[in-house]
Amino acid sequence: MENAKSVGEKLVALCREGQNLRAIETLYSDDICSVEAMSGEGFPREMQGKQAALGKGKWWSENHEVHRSTVKGPYPHGDDRFAVIFDYDVTSKPMGNQRIQMEEVAIYTVSNGKIIREEFFFKGG
Amino acid sequence: MENAKSVGEKLVALCREGQNLRAIETLYSDDICSVEAMSGEGFPREMQGKQAALGKGKWWSENHEVHRSTVKGPYPHGDDRFAVIFDYDVTSKPMGNQRIQMEEVAIYTVSNGKIIREEFFFKGG
Repeated sequence: MENAKSVGEKLVALCREGQNLRAIETLYSDDICSVEAMSGEGFPREMQGKQAALGKGKWWSENHEVHRSTVKGPYPHGDDRFAVIFDYDVTSKPMGNQRIQMEEVAIYTVSNGKIIREEFFFKGG
Repeated sequence: MENAKSVGEKLVALCREGQNLRAIETLYSDDICSVEAMSGEGFPREMQGKQAALGKGKWWSENHEVHRSTVKGPYPHGDDRFAVIFDYDVTSKPMGNQRIQMEEVAIYTVSNGKIIREEFFFKGG
């Protein structure tokens, strides 16, 4: 069974190629639980299931024009968790086409070789 | 009671001044649980209590000459957790005075206004 480091390396490689949705399809459990940093607009803070995660990913990619992205990691913690640092320079449609720099930390939990939980840590305004 | 964001801002400010031990003294619970990324040499992976955390911090500062450090954050997740990204350029005594770049993510859990858990995520060799 793949451990956190191995799954993390695949996730980082796919995200570096902009294949974030493919990462969800191939590396996430059907029961993925996705937890945002804060309650926001439009999405509940916590969402369950691969279809919900894919929906959120599609919404994000349709609403943000990515000028530059940096993906650093994976940073493992034991065999079942790893961190990834995302750094985006984007134009955000929901923010009135403002160009913004977003940096966030994501913590992933792996069980039976699949990602079962993702938690985002975000430095808001 | 202070939340994760507020405690995180104090921790980041102290670490930027190199006052890491003072951060432990003032912001950590007596019952802090500190968990390293992996089992290593010398220290157990998981240590309990403020004295143990201070001991580990003192050992680290006595065994690493810091040439440059960058501390980014805090990145909150809800009211009870936050992430910090540490980036160090150090000469490491335990590694035979090798000069190394270390980047790690730390996740802190806050309860009753104090840090009760720190977990390190580290990209080893």
